[in-house]
Amino acid sequence: MTTPVDTNLDLVLKRELAVPVNLVWRGLTEPGLLKQWFVPKPWRIADCRVDLRPGGEFYTVMEDPEGKEFPTTGCFLEIIKEKRLVWTSVLHGNYRPAPSPATGNKECAHIAMTAIIELEALSSGTRYTAHAMHNAPEQKKAHEDMGFHDGWGTTVTQLEELLKQEEK
Amino acid sequence: MTTPVDTNLDLVLKRELAVPVNLVWRGLTEPGLLKQWFVPKPWRIADCRVDLRPGGEFYTVMEDPEGKEFPTTGCFLEIIKEKRLVWTSVLHGNYRPAPSPATGNKECAHIAMTAIIELEALSSGTRYTAHAMHNAPEQKKAHEDMGFHDGWGTTVTQLEELLKQEEK
Repeated sequence: MTTPVDTNLDLVLKRELAVPVNLVWRGLTEPGLLKQWFVPKPWRIADCRVDLRPGGEFYTVMEDPEGKEFPTTGCFLEIIKEKRLVWTSVLHGNYRPAPSPATGNKECAHIAMTAIIELEALSSGTRYTAHAMHNAPEQKKAHEDMGFHDGWGTTVTQLEELLKQEEK
Repeated sequence: MTTPVDTNLDLVLKRELAVPVNLVWRGLTEPGLLKQWFVPKPWRIADCRVDLRPGGEFYTVMEDPEGKEFPTTGCFLEIIKEKRLVWTSVLHGNYRPAPSPATGNKECAHIAMTAIIELEALSSGTRYTAHAMHNAPEQKKAHEDMGFHDGWGTTVTQLEELLKQEEK
């Protein structure tokens, strides 16, 4: 079931990727691949854990070009292989509510968000839809201002490039 | 899988109920029954919606003896019939993050919580375990101070009494 989009609260990115859906799924769920594309370069993912079950922890450490680390913990909610992956920032592992108010990490403000990634196999590759759900227009705007469209767009391009290499 | 209890953060209530597990499940999930036991009397549930699927909304309106209403929205996370029911207050329907900071409803302060109810069929009835997970010791304490043990204990007794009537 596709979740309705609330245009006041949500951000959506749609792309067609020239790689097959099974590879895209691997890129989304295998830490070794995820680390290579999940933040726009020259940022990088220094560490990553994927406990791929509803209630499983999704842990990433983003690192800026100066080596400063920004750990982020979320929780997987739904996993339908090669079709749909849902996680949220407002829960930690085993569905425990995330600490609030957020980290105080001013350079990387915490966004309360649920992300829904949907994949659809195409003859030419994969339709990729990322749907970021927020709880208030201000949170949507904060996420936009942090560079949602450029950032998520850039990382999806990185994903596609990585998977083309993986395919060879 | 039973979720580990963190004694610094969690509250747990265990009871044996003298009613069969299929009835307990109905009491937990059917709005018509839920309305009759879910808050300690003389409070009552004025309205209730149960969208019983992962991501489904769990909406209740508690009403105090003076008729003042306290609507509460949560989200179901896991539903294993007659075994396990998980919901959280930090998400609304379709996993959208709940508004924060909370409602400003000072008489009924918002607690960031995930509730896990586990049921086990016994020859004598049902083992009932309620596990409330919080994100900080202060939130656990706030929930204790609101009367977790008495409140949840009282409602479970109300549930048992109701189901004994239902059984007849």
